[in-house]
Amino acid sequence: MTAPLKSIDGTGDSASLGKMMAGIGRDARAAARALALAPAGQKNRALSAMASAIRAGKAAILSANAEDIAAAQASGMTGAFLDRLKLDDTKIEGIAAGIETVAALKDPVGAVTESWTRPNGMTIERVRVPLGVIGIIYESRPNVTADAGALCLKSGNAAILRGGSDSTYSSRAIHAALTQGLREAGLPEAAIQMIPTRDRAAVGAMLTGLDGNIDVIVPRGGKSLVARVQDEARVPVFAHLEGVVHVYVDRAADLAMAKTIVLNAKMRRTGVCGAAETLLVDRAAASTHLKPLIEMLIDAGCEIRGDKDVQALDARVKAATEEDWRTEYLDAIITAGVVDGVDAAIAHIEKYGSHHTDAIVTADAATAKKFLRQVDSAIVLHNASTQFADGGEFGFGAEIGIATGRLHARGPVGVDQLTTFKYRIRGNGQTRP
Amino acid sequence: MTAPLKSIDGTGDSASLGKMMAGIGRDARAAARALALAPAGQKNRALSAMASAIRAGKAAILSANAEDIAAAQASGMTGAFLDRLKLDDTKIEGIAAGIETVAALKDPVGAVTESWTRPNGMTIERVRVPLGVIGIIYESRPNVTADAGALCLKSGNAAILRGGSDSTYSSRAIHAALTQGLREAGLPEAAIQMIPTRDRAAVGAMLTGLDGNIDVIVPRGGKSLVARVQDEARVPVFAHLEGVVHVYVDRAADLAMAKTIVLNAKMRRTGVCGAAETLLVDRAAASTHLKPLIEMLIDAGCEIRGDKDVQALDARVKAATEEDWRTEYLDAIITAGVVDGVDAAIAHIEKYGSHHTDAIVTADAATAKKFLRQVDSAIVLHNASTQFADGGEFGFGAEIGIATGRLHARGPVGVDQLTTFKYRIRGNGQTRP
Repeated sequence: MTAPLKSIDGTGDSASLGKMMAGIGRDARAAARALALAPAGQKNRALSAMASAIRAGKAAILSANAEDIAAAQASGMTGAFLDRLKLDDTKIEGIAAGIETVAALKDPVGAVTESWTRPNGMTIERVRVPLGVIGIIYESRPNVTADAGALCLKSGNAAILRGGSDSTYSSRAIHAALTQGLREAGLPEAAIQMIPTRDRAAVGAMLTGLDGNIDVIVPRGGKSLVARVQDEARVPVFAHLEGVVHVYVDRAADLAMAKTIVLNAKMRRTGVCGAAETLLVDRAAASTHLKPLIEMLIDAGCEIRGDKDVQALDARVKAATEEDWRTEYLDAIITAGVVDGVDAAIAHIEKYGSHHTDAIVTADAATAKKFLRQVDSAIVLHNASTQFADGGEFGFGAEIGIATGRLHARGPVGVDQLTTFKYRIRGNGQTRP
Repeated sequence: MTAPLKSIDGTGDSASLGKMMAGIGRDARAAARALALAPAGQKNRALSAMASAIRAGKAAILSANAEDIAAAQASGMTGAFLDRLKLDDTKIEGIAAGIETVAALKDPVGAVTESWTRPNGMTIERVRVPLGVIGIIYESRPNVTADAGALCLKSGNAAILRGGSDSTYSSRAIHAALTQGLREAGLPEAAIQMIPTRDRAAVGAMLTGLDGNIDVIVPRGGKSLVARVQDEARVPVFAHLEGVVHVYVDRAADLAMAKTIVLNAKMRRTGVCGAAETLLVDRAAASTHLKPLIEMLIDAGCEIRGDKDVQALDARVKAATEEDWRTEYLDAIITAGVVDGVDAAIAHIEKYGSHHTDAIVTADAATAKKFLRQVDSAIVLHNASTQFADGGEFGFGAEIGIATGRLHARGPVGVDQLTTFKYRIRGNGQTRP
């Protein structure tokens, strides 16, 4: 289906790798220029054709995936890793449907977000335009190939994809379907390129920005991948290293609501970045709220690592270490402690948090307002579960990730955040005095 | 007025410089946290007090400036350099009035820029919050000390200022007035810090981000300063390296309007980044429009470097080299050429431009629309002078600079662009299914 790819195991020759990567960068930049001007309808036709090609290519994708799975098993990979890597009919239908969801989103490109008229009669518009070229570096989740490619295309950006080496065959098969969609809609195939080598030096090349031909890098994967990208990238990165997510149960919290929210925030899915990792309970509510919350979590199968107050409640509570308060478990474990009111909760979150997502449960409006104002996180919630930290739940339709950096994108990164803007000024001969 | 400063010539000891810079970063971060929560009224009281302190401290500022001027003259500095460095009563009043202009701006912090309600009843707000800590590295224009400090304070950001070593005494005297204003309003003095050493290694330390305690760097100065900052900074930079600004005169341009706009765009002030550097004339209008435009510019004292068509018009036109088309003269010189219509003009700008500001003069709406859509610059204008590329002219009140990067800030960077955002979510017990 696709043009022949170079050896996926690399040439072993850094000069030829550099030359290849530079060419990928130039092709992406040229494609980005075409995509920036592509009408919404053409991009959506490409996305629909991609979804069809994914469905039509199911057998080929499953067969490629079986090769990846066999290789992973042979090298002794674990259950969770294989789960993420493995595709089946349902997952492939999910990939196709995901592309269609992106197609149905409003096109951000060309949207006028502000406009005003100057005293001299000039009108100024601020209009969304694509960012340019987005590099996505991800681990062995083949579905990211389609998710990221579709989001970049919708927002008018060219994508350079570098998937985990363990999902090479699956990602290539999915990429072939994306390429077919681009071709059917008459868009440049270089709009979504996949690095055709497993050579790890290709990642290093991407992180340098390919001579200015990558505008932003999005890492998708575990903490070590994100840390490497954040440390080494010479271009902006949209990412979050971790989500040390807090739920603070205030003295004015309704106990039933607190239980519902804490249980959902911690246990709905423990492996997502919006899962709660620390429970803080107001000392003024400890006598009434703490024990029921802790017992509920233990009953739900959650391990508790607590401070002295929490340990005193139940023999099953382990002692929390200083490190525990900074830990993103991504598992059925929570650190729990008692704090002296909302100010102490805010100070704790400032000290130990990761500026990702934090919530307060309270019926007191002034306390909620203080928490929402002072906690310096991308997402702050009042009386709602932290597991809403997700582009889909925000109504963005889809997200390429969640960012905790402060520049440009923060929180769920959807198609709007994959754009920048320019100013269009219209006059009738105005000159500056 | 200020706390004692360390030797401005540095310790010559890189360990102690590193320690000092790290302390400045930590102090700035702590101050930023206080500033983020400071009410608009308190920040404005500080700004008013700063303006008063500038006026009251005029004698001290002029005396400090005289020291800088004497040192610059002794080291053989040129006229233009001395002009930028020299302060007088009018310039000092301008600095004070500039701070008052910033005080009068709407406070961006806390502004809700979007809000919506989810089907489950949760409300989501996107609210502006400060970026954090902004590092400003500037050359010998002492007024930047006040301009940048005031803009950062207004937008709730801490500022770390590093001025040109030739303006050290002037900048310190102005900084003392800013510090007095902060103190009078009860804001932390570390909200606006000035690096108290001329040691150039301090700039290198800022470019590394001071252990994550600088969120963005803004260079203010010539091309070599901006280039160094862009090359070496490990944190985001808001800047433009140069403005290779084009005016394209289309076949459908009114000649009188074209003359007015071209003259203003090139000659109003030749040293600003929005000054036109290249004139492109549609071949279909060359016979009527080219000669009057070129003669007008020559009569106004502008040197013309032209392609063959332009050279054929007038013996005073020099031949444009390939390099001329890429040159920001910042002087009374323009490169001029004939192109085959709007598509060729767009292609020329894509090839030679700097994504800063470009304009079209035409009475044809479809041609204007194409130009505004396809030219990938921060600012694109139709029938107006490129010298409007300025935050004040946009109605932003003041700007810290103009950015040609694509991330976060683009075009004039005013107080709004010195903020980021967070999401505030309010529920009544919602959990994620």
